[in-house]
Amino acid sequence: MAGSTFGNRFRIMTWGESHGKGIGVVVDGCPAGLPLCEADIQKLLDRRKPGQSRFTTQRQEGDRVEILSGVFEGKTTGTPIALEVRNTDQRSHDYGNIKEVYRPGHADFTFDAKYGFRDYRGGGRSSGRETIGRVAAGAIALKLLESMGIQIRAYTRSIGNVAVEPSRFELDEMWRNRLYMPDAEAAKAAEALLEAAMERKDSVGGVCECVISGLWAGVGEPVFDKLDAVLAKAMFSIGAVKGFEVGDGFDAAAACGSGNNDAFGLDEDGQVVKKTNHAGGILGGISDGSAVVFRTAFKPTPSIASPQSSVTRDGKETTLEIQGRHDPIIVPRAVVVVEAMAALSVLDLLLENMAARADKILEFYGK
Amino acid sequence: MAGSTFGNRFRIMTWGESHGKGIGVVVDGCPAGLPLCEADIQKLLDRRKPGQSRFTTQRQEGDRVEILSGVFEGKTTGTPIALEVRNTDQRSHDYGNIKEVYRPGHADFTFDAKYGFRDYRGGGRSSGRETIGRVAAGAIALKLLESMGIQIRAYTRSIGNVAVEPSRFELDEMWRNRLYMPDAEAAKAAEALLEAAMERKDSVGGVCECVISGLWAGVGEPVFDKLDAVLAKAMFSIGAVKGFEVGDGFDAAAACGSGNNDAFGLDEDGQVVKKTNHAGGILGGISDGSAVVFRTAFKPTPSIASPQSSVTRDGKETTLEIQGRHDPIIVPRAVVVVEAMAALSVLDLLLENMAARADKILEFYGK
Amino acid sequence: MAGSTFGNRFRIMTWGESHGKGIGVVVDGCPAGLPLCEADIQKLLDRRKPGQSRFTTQRQEGDRVEILSGVFEGKTTGTPIALEVRNTDQRSHDYGNIKEVYRPGHADFTFDAKYGFRDYRGGGRSSGRETIGRVAAGAIALKLLESMGIQIRAYTRSIGNVAVEPSRFELDEMWRNRLYMPDAEAAKAAEALLEAAMERKDSVGGVCECVISGLWAGVGEPVFDKLDAVLAKAMFSIGAVKGFEVGDGFDAAAACGSGNNDAFGLDEDGQVVKKTNHAGGILGGISDGSAVVFRTAFKPTPSIASPQSSVTRDGKETTLEIQGRHDPIIVPRAVVVVEAMAALSVLDLLLENMAARADKILEFYGK
Amino acid sequence: MAGSTFGNRFRIMTWGESHGKGIGVVVDGCPAGLPLCEADIQKLLDRRKPGQSRFTTQRQEGDRVEILSGVFEGKTTGTPIALEVRNTDQRSHDYGNIKEVYRPGHADFTFDAKYGFRDYRGGGRSSGRETIGRVAAGAIALKLLESMGIQIRAYTRSIGNVAVEPSRFELDEMWRNRLYMPDAEAAKAAEALLEAAMERKDSVGGVCECVISGLWAGVGEPVFDKLDAVLAKAMFSIGAVKGFEVGDGFDAAAACGSGNNDAFGLDEDGQVVKKTNHAGGILGGISDGSAVVFRTAFKPTPSIASPQSSVTRDGKETTLEIQGRHDPIIVPRAVVVVEAMAALSVLDLLLENMAARADKILEFYGK
Repeated sequence: MAGSTFGNRFRIMTWGESHGKGIGVVVDGCPAGLPLCEADIQKLLDRRKPGQSRFTTQRQEGDRVEILSGVFEGKTTGTPIALEVRNTDQRSHDYGNIKEVYRPGHADFTFDAKYGFRDYRGGGRSSGRETIGRVAAGAIALKLLESMGIQIRAYTRSIGNVAVEPSRFELDEMWRNRLYMPDAEAAKAAEALLEAAMERKDSVGGVCECVISGLWAGVGEPVFDKLDAVLAKAMFSIGAVKGFEVGDGFDAAAACGSGNNDAFGLDEDGQVVKKTNHAGGILGGISDGSAVVFRTAFKPTPSIASPQSSVTRDGKETTLEIQGRHDPIIVPRAVVVVEAMAALSVLDLLLENMAARADKILEFYGK
Repeated sequence: MAGSTFGNRFRIMTWGESHGKGIGVVVDGCPAGLPLCEADIQKLLDRRKPGQSRFTTQRQEGDRVEILSGVFEGKTTGTPIALEVRNTDQRSHDYGNIKEVYRPGHADFTFDAKYGFRDYRGGGRSSGRETIGRVAAGAIALKLLESMGIQIRAYTRSIGNVAVEPSRFELDEMWRNRLYMPDAEAAKAAEALLEAAMERKDSVGGVCECVISGLWAGVGEPVFDKLDAVLAKAMFSIGAVKGFEVGDGFDAAAACGSGNNDAFGLDEDGQVVKKTNHAGGILGGISDGSAVVFRTAFKPTPSIASPQSSVTRDGKETTLEIQGRHDPIIVPRAVVVVEAMAALSVLDLLLENMAARADKILEFYGK
Repeated sequence: MAGSTFGNRFRIMTWGESHGKGIGVVVDGCPAGLPLCEADIQKLLDRRKPGQSRFTTQRQEGDRVEILSGVFEGKTTGTPIALEVRNTDQRSHDYGNIKEVYRPGHADFTFDAKYGFRDYRGGGRSSGRETIGRVAAGAIALKLLESMGIQIRAYTRSIGNVAVEPSRFELDEMWRNRLYMPDAEAAKAAEALLEAAMERKDSVGGVCECVISGLWAGVGEPVFDKLDAVLAKAMFSIGAVKGFEVGDGFDAAAACGSGNNDAFGLDEDGQVVKKTNHAGGILGGISDGSAVVFRTAFKPTPSIASPQSSVTRDGKETTLEIQGRHDPIIVPRAVVVVEAMAALSVLDLLLENMAARADKILEFYGK
Repeated sequence: MAGSTFGNRFRIMTWGESHGKGIGVVVDGCPAGLPLCEADIQKLLDRRKPGQSRFTTQRQEGDRVEILSGVFEGKTTGTPIALEVRNTDQRSHDYGNIKEVYRPGHADFTFDAKYGFRDYRGGGRSSGRETIGRVAAGAIALKLLESMGIQIRAYTRSIGNVAVEPSRFELDEMWRNRLYMPDAEAAKAAEALLEAAMERKDSVGGVCECVISGLWAGVGEPVFDKLDAVLAKAMFSIGAVKGFEVGDGFDAAAACGSGNNDAFGLDEDGQVVKKTNHAGGILGGISDGSAVVFRTAFKPTPSIASPQSSVTRDGKETTLEIQGRHDPIIVPRAVVVVEAMAALSVLDLLLENMAARADKILEFYGK
C-alpha cells in the first residue's frame, strides 16, 4: 500500500515535508488531450494559502507550482504529470522544543512510534502543507470533471457552535468572507468566536460541507468501492478530520424509514428522480443523479499557545508551550482540500464505471 | 478496482447474491500456520443470522460455512482460503412488483442505471446477505488479531433516539438482549420504540459503536491509508451506513483545542500514554496505543410496509407496498459486520506496518 | 499483493489445491450484459483435462464447473462471478514419500521454506490443477474479446528438439493431434520422441506459441504496464515456464536494426500498417495493429519415474522414486492455459485503455 | 493501473519526458532509517549516462539527481522519497521530420494511436531517458538489499552473435571495458562488430544476464506474483526488450527432465541445497536459495541512419533518414537498468514475504 498513493485509474502519489525542499505530486493516469497550464493549478493552490486573513497563518508562502512533465503544447499527453512547489523559506529555523517534546493532538508521538524517528521541522510530513500535493492534483481532476458539467463546491458549514443558517444560506457569500461561509451573519458570529478563542490562546473546530452537482446516476462500485466509501476514505485521509457523513448522516440514525426514504418520481422529461434527497445522492454506493452532499468534521487546531502537559522523546514529563502563530481554525483552509479530494474520488470512479457494461465497451471501440 | 476486493496484504474478494446459489469469499494473503476450522467462522456467522428475535427476519437461513481451500491439517497454509455458504432456500419465489418497481432507499434504480439490468431477487448483490462474505473473512482476521492480544468489540450505541447511557454502560449486557445493547434499560426502551415502529409499519435507524483494544502505537499509513481513513472506507462500504466518526467525532467540531487535545503522560512502566482519549486512539492516521473508538450511523431499514411513491423500470409513476417481513432496525445484525470490517482493516495495516523500519526488516530476516 | 490475484479492471482471484475440496476462481469486474453459461466455460476446461491421450494423465477428472454468482437470466450482472470445480476424487490417498521428501524440480522445498509447512497432497497449490481457475476465468475474457473480433490462438510450437516446420504449418492440424501441434509431420515425430522418453522414464520440455489477431493499435500502458510486460508476467506465472519472447524474441538480440525494424506503409484503405512483424505486434509496449505473437518455454515435467537424489524435510539425504503416472510433456495441456492468461491480460489493458483520451471519455458519457 | 507505477510495498511512480523539464521518480514505501544521500543514487545514474565510449551517445547529459523529500538527517524517514533530475539541455531543437514521420521500431505510431498526439521531442516518454527514474529508485532498493547481503550484478552476455565464453568469464572484466562484458576477448570482438555496424549505418542487438546472489529461500508469492513472473514484467517493461528467460530458459524446452531437474542435497552445515542450478534459483515462483539467474534480450537500436520506408502522421508514404548520433547497441547502457528493476522486484517481494507466516508475525510484534 505504502500510503501516499490515492486512486486507481486517476492515481496520484504525493510527496514532501513542511520544511523540506518542496512538496509535490505525480498524477499517473490523467487522460490525454486535456488543456492544462500552471494557472489552472495555481488558482486552487492560492485558495489554500495562508496569510489571507487574521485567522490564517501570516507566513508568506510563495507556493508557485511548476508542471514538470506530462503536458505538451498546452495539453496533457496521457503520461505522468509531475507537479512541484519548491519551499522558498528553508532557512535554518529554531524549532524549539518540538524536536524533543510530543505535541498533544499532533502525530509527533505516533510517527516516532512507527518509524523510530521523524522530521520534526514544522510537522514534517504530517504538516498541513502536505495537502499542496492533493490540491494540485485535484485541480486537474476538477478541470476534467467541469468539462463534463460536474461541479464540486465545498464551504464552511460551521465553526464551533456557529452554523450556517439554512434560511440565510447564500452560496456566493462564501467568496465574500475569509471563512468561506455562505451566510454573512454566521460568518460575523464565527469571526467573533475565533477572536475570543485567540485571545484565550485556544482554537476551534468546525464542519465543512460539500455538494457535487451534475453527476449522473451510475458512478460507484459495489460493494467495497462505493462512492460514499471512497469519499469517506478521501476525507478521513485529510489531517484533523474526525467525522464524515452523507446526506442526513447521523440524523438518519435517529429517523424513521418513512421519513428517511426518498420517494421516486419522474421529472418533466420523464426521467427518474428522487423527490427528496435524504440519501445525499448515493444509493447502494452508486450515484443516483441527485446532488451528492456530505459533511466533514474537523477537530480544533491542535497547536495552541496555552501550556500543555506532555512528555519528551526520552520519557520525561514536561510542560509544552507551542511558539509561533497558528490558525485558530482549520476548516476555511481545508475547504479547497475537500473539493480536491472529492474530485479525485469522483473522477477515479467515473473512469472505472466506463467498464460497467459490455455493450457500452463494444460501442466505445466501434464494434 | 472492480469493487468487490478489500485489503492489500490480507485481501478478500466477496461474491454472491441474496437468492443465487450461494455467498462466499476468498481470502488471499492469510499468513500460514493459523489454526482454523469451520466453527471459528460459523460462530460469527451465527451472530448475523436473522430469526433471533422479534426484531429480525424470521426466515430460517441455514448459512453453514464450508472451507474449500487454504487449510490443511487444521492450519492455514498461506494459500487462498475459499469460504462458501450455499443458499438453502432457492425455491422459485414470487418477487412481486420489486422486479419492476424501484424501492425507495434501495439500490434498485442505481443498479439499473449502472449495469442496464439487475438481479432483482431479494435485492441481489445489494442485499444484506452480501455481508456473509465479509463476516466469514473477518472471522479469520479476528482470530489472528486475538492471538496478538487485540480485541474488537462492537455494540448498539443507539436506536432511534434511545441511546446507551454512559453511567449504565455494561459491556456484557449486550449479550443478554437481542439488540446487542450494553445497557439493559436502554435496550428495554429501544424494544418499545421498535414495537411502536412495527405497528405503524415503519423502521428506525441507529448507531453502532466499536472499540479496538490492545492495539499498540504505530499502525496506519500516512497520508492516504491512515488507520481512520481505512476504517472509514470499511464502514461506509457496509449497506445503509450514512455516517462515521472517530473519538469525539462531530462533537470535536464544536470543541476547543484546549479541551480536545489529549495530554501525554507516562504510565507506571514509563510508557507514553494519552491521559484522555478524545482522539479515539488515532493521531495523524496512526494508532497511538489508546483504544480505537469509532461510531457508525445506519439509516432506518428502507424496506417498510407502508405505501410509498415510486416509479417503474419503464417510467411510470406508481405506489409500492413492500411485502414480506423485514427487520425494523439494521444495527443489531450489523454489529458483527462492523467487527469483521474493523478486523480486516486493522490486520491489513498491521501487516503493512511490518515494513515501516529498515532495522526491523533486517532483524526479521536475521541480518 | 497476496499473490493469487491477477488483473486490475477485470480482476480474478483463484483458489484451490490439487486434492482439496475443489478449485475455483472469482472474477471481479466483469462487465454486465455478457451472455454466459456454464458450457462457455466447460468447453475450455475440457481442453486442459487429462486423460485425452497416452501422453496425458489417465486419472479421470470430472471437472464440472458451476457458476455460483454474477449471472442472472443468462447474462453477467456486473457483480463478481464465482466459478467452482469440486474435486470428485477425494479418497484418502497414499501420498508415499512425497510428504517427507522434496521432489526435484517441484516447489515442495520452497513452499516449506516460505510457509513452514505445506499441503503435500498431489502438489497442493502448486499442482497443475491450479490452472483450472485461470482457464475458467479466461473463458469469460475470451468470450468478451471474441465479441469484439479478437482471436487468441495458442498451439504447441516444439517438443524437445522437434519443432513445427513453417512450410508445413497448418493451424487446423492442431485439432487433429493430441499434441495441439499445427504440423502433422512434426506431431508424429514428437509422439515418437515422447514414447522414447516414457520408456526411459524421462520427460521432455517444449515451447507454446500464441497469436492474438484482431487487436487494434493502442492497447497497453507505458511504462510499466506495457502489453508485453503484462503478458510476460501472465506467462511466467504459469508453472514450469522458463522463458518468454515476443516477435523475433531472442533472435532479435542477434539481429541488426536494418533487419529487425518493421517499415511502415499504408494498406489499401490508407491505414498505417507494418510491412513486416519482427516486433510481434507491440511497439513501446502498446499494440500496433499487427498480430501479437509470443512464445513461452516450458521445462520438462519434473515428475519422472527414474530415481533422483534428494533430501527429506528433516534433513537426510535420500533417493526418491516418484510413483504414479505423469505426463511426459507439459505443453499440450498448457496451450489452453496460455490462451486464458493471454485473454485476461489483453482484456484488462483494453478496459484500462478506455480512459486514455479525454475526448473519448466525454463522448462516452455523451458530454 | 495507469502504467507508471511499479511495486506494491516498495512502490515507485516515475515521470518525465526526454526533452521536458526533467525526469524523476517518487518512492512510496521505503522503510525508515536507511542511510541515504544523493551520491548513493548518482553512482548508479552515472553508469547509465551516455558519452562514456564511442558506442554511446556523445551528448553530455549532466543528470544530477536531487533528493527532495523523505530523507532527514541522512536517513530515510519512511515517507515518500522524491528524486529529480532536471534536464539541462532544453534549447529549442530542430526535431526534423520525426514530428511528422513514424520512426520504424519506435513507439511514435502507437503513442499517436493511443493518445491522439504525442510529445515527439526526442521520443518523449518512450525515450531511454525514462529509465533515469527507475535507476534512481533502484539505487535505493539496491542499497537496502545490499545491507541484507543480497548482491545484484548484471552484465552484457552477448552483442550480436558475439557471446561471453563461459571458460573466459571473469566478472571484474566487465568494469574494464565499456561494453560491460565480463570477457576481454569477447569484448574486443564485439567492439569490432559494432564498428562495422556503425560504418554501414546499422545497429546490433544483445543479451544482458543478471545474477542475484545472497537471496535466501522463500521470496515470491504463488501463484501470480511469483518471483520470476514479477522479474519478467520488470524486464519487459524496459524499452527494446523482446525476450526473458530464467535459469536454462529456452534451452530447458529442449531438455529432458532427468537433465533439467536439480537434485537436492545438503551442504556442510546440513542445509538443503540444489546440487545444480538449471532452475535459475526459483522453484514454483519462490526463491530456492541458489543464485537467481536470468537473461534479457534487447533488440537492436531502432534509430539507424540508413534510409527507411515509413509513413507520415497524415497518411503519406515517405522515406525517413534519422539524423543525429545514436548508440549502435542498447545493452551496455541497459545493464544498470536491469539491476535497478531486479532490485525493485526482489525488494517488493521480500517485504511482502514478511507476512507469510503467522508465527513470524507474532514474533515480530513481540507477542
